[in-house]
Amino acid sequence: MSLTHPLVLASESPRREQILRMLGFNFTIAPSGVDETIPANLAPDQVPEVLAQAKALHVSQQKKDALILGADTLVVLDDRILGKPSTPEEALEMLRFLGGKTHKVYTGVALALGGKIIDSGVACSEVTFVQHSENDLKAYVQTGEPMDKAGAYAIQGRGAFLVEGIRGCFFNVMGLPVQLTLRLLEVYRA
Amino acid sequence: MSLTHPLVLASESPRREQILRMLGFNFTIAPSGVDETIPANLAPDQVPEVLAQAKALHVSQQKKDALILGADTLVVLDDRILGKPSTPEEALEMLRFLGGKTHKVYTGVALALGGKIIDSGVACSEVTFVQHSENDLKAYVQTGEPMDKAGAYAIQGRGAFLVEGIRGCFFNVMGLPVQLTLRLLEVYRA
Repeated sequence: MSLTHPLVLASESPRREQILRMLGFNFTIAPSGVDETIPANLAPDQVPEVLAQAKALHVSQQKKDALILGADTLVVLDDRILGKPSTPEEALEMLRFLGGKTHKVYTGVALALGGKIIDSGVACSEVTFVQHSENDLKAYVQTGEPMDKAGAYAIQGRGAFLVEGIRGCFFNVMGLPVQLTLRLLEVYRA
Repeated sequence: MSLTHPLVLASESPRREQILRMLGFNFTIAPSGVDETIPANLAPDQVPEVLAQAKALHVSQQKKDALILGADTLVVLDDRILGKPSTPEEALEMLRFLGGKTHKVYTGVALALGGKIIDSGVACSEVTFVQHSENDLKAYVQTGEPMDKAGAYAIQGRGAFLVEGIRGCFFNVMGLPVQLTLRLLEVYRA
């Protein structure tokens, strides 16, 4: 899809880059440069949209002529928000917590132009985990894959063995929801 | 996962190879060499398991010391079975037929050893399509991507723009269901 402005992805996630290329967009990448600390006093489903807006705004203030796409993904179960684990022990604890249950994955997406947020939204998918043995979870943490992923797993990697099934957009779970992203960019289709 | 026997994937689908490697298996590839004509007088959800068995058996008769994994994927809507399109016109007609509706994707998986089928099963996922314009569908067919895919789309490619959401295993839609494959191979875990 050709756009009326240059497109910049405000994310260094290789998964988001892969999804946006898969959809056929040409774009460049800029680090979002935003503290990803989860803001207090926000409902779990509001956090990723607010963080996505902060990421898009940060880059937009430096690149005012480009469309800036920001995104943020969080895993939520029982009102507990799971971001990226800080240590292998925290990753293992997250995976134990998710085992045998269905959690929600929210990705907020925001579009900025000229230093302002133009539009944003949030997508939700449900992911059901198999109950795995402690040994299998430990072996998975040892691969290192969980460490830079919200909820400590990659659905498109070795972590696929954890997943019984999903409901919603698979690419949302990977980091960038397809229909929400297309809807935000459709307005700027050349 | 280490297995008690060498593993052979009886499929030349690069998607199935990618999924099996993602899960951490070491294996070689052999062409299934089976006519993929859809057998008559079978219910739609029986066809992929029967074809997966035929593919695994064919290779097993030549490689009796190896575990042979066969798979077959079909798209079903309103009792109509959609295999791979023969022409771009047929691809376009399939995409029009699927638009705005929810279809089922069945992948049969079969495991053979010593020239016999050891175990097999079938997984089902539901995929909901957005209603797209004729122009967008034609542009998609022109990319060539639909031609070697059941139902004329690749959910993990440009075709992701067609999909509103799924219910079940994403990798089943891509060609190899994760939990069914792991369950069949678990018995031969070393």
